[in-house]
Amino acid sequence: MREKIVRSEEIYHGRVVNLVVHEVELPDGKHSKRELVRHPGAVAVVALDDQQQVLLVRQYRIAADQILHEIPAGTLDPDEGPEACAVRELQEETGYKPGRIEHIGGLYVAPGYTTEFIHLYLATDLQESRLDMDDDEFLEVKRVPLAEALNMIERNEIIDGKSIAALLLVARRMGI
Amino acid sequence: MREKIVRSEEIYHGRVVNLVVHEVELPDGKHSKRELVRHPGAVAVVALDDQQQVLLVRQYRIAADQILHEIPAGTLDPDEGPEACAVRELQEETGYKPGRIEHIGGLYVAPGYTTEFIHLYLATDLQESRLDMDDDEFLEVKRVPLAEALNMIERNEIIDGKSIAALLLVARRMGI
Repeated sequence: MREKIVRSEEIYHGRVVNLVVHEVELPDGKHSKRELVRHPGAVAVVALDDQQQVLLVRQYRIAADQILHEIPAGTLDPDEGPEACAVRELQEETGYKPGRIEHIGGLYVAPGYTTEFIHLYLATDLQESRLDMDDDEFLEVKRVPLAEALNMIERNEIIDGKSIAALLLVARRMGI
Repeated sequence: MREKIVRSEEIYHGRVVNLVVHEVELPDGKHSKRELVRHPGAVAVVALDDQQQVLLVRQYRIAADQILHEIPAGTLDPDEGPEACAVRELQEETGYKPGRIEHIGGLYVAPGYTTEFIHLYLATDLQESRLDMDDDEFLEVKRVPLAEALNMIERNEIIDGKSIAALLLVARRMGI
């Protein structure tokens, strides 16, 4: 079932993503083209406080042309481990540090065309720290009961893939 | 919170994806660059038979460099509605037609850099039809109990975002 890369061309080398077009040999010997976004990988964090509320980030997303509700998340820095990245992104975006952080899974966002893999974490025992956003990030943090976040998924008010997957994973684990 | 597009440059116009770089004006008046993959959108289908088994597709994904287990899915054809696409992709990939198909939600796969939105469906009352794969698709269809698919998520054997989200949504809806 595997495909062999015959030739590769880098089309674009950007700030977050690179675009590469591979010519591949298919299992039947024929050739085909695979357009591939190269991405360094990312993390996403369900941050749950002692009252079973989760932190959601409201952020305008140009790709969706709307403000989305997402869990805190971000891209791995070079040589950064995913857990350290999860702690850093949570603090930068929400101003909280987790007393406890636990790996709960991971996912390819779109394995047909991007290498991006997101490591998912559950952060608890939250302690107030300081906000420290990126220069070009404009976000609002919202705190909602986990049960309400699940209702937001049902009502299609949370429509971000990583957030849906991670919140449902946590709900399942907690029997909610 | 919105961003205004000041200038756009199409870097690549491909078979499935286009790459565009926007220069945007941020809410504080500063400018920034947004790298954006333009994608036509897609569907993904939880196909559940009368014995509460789901159809999984095993497929080599070059972006992950491994064989992944995913639910049946595919890209919208031009002018194709998502429900019609779901029925078509299910039949092409698994050889089954749904007697009943129901919209269960939708998600942006990576709203930071791709416009791809996946419409999620639950297909039931499955009827055998014929297989009709794309020329460059090599897949194997597997039938597993929904409860086992959920275990595969827990064990990190299903690591595809849309599949995790859609299977957990269906499990929740069925109280499993």
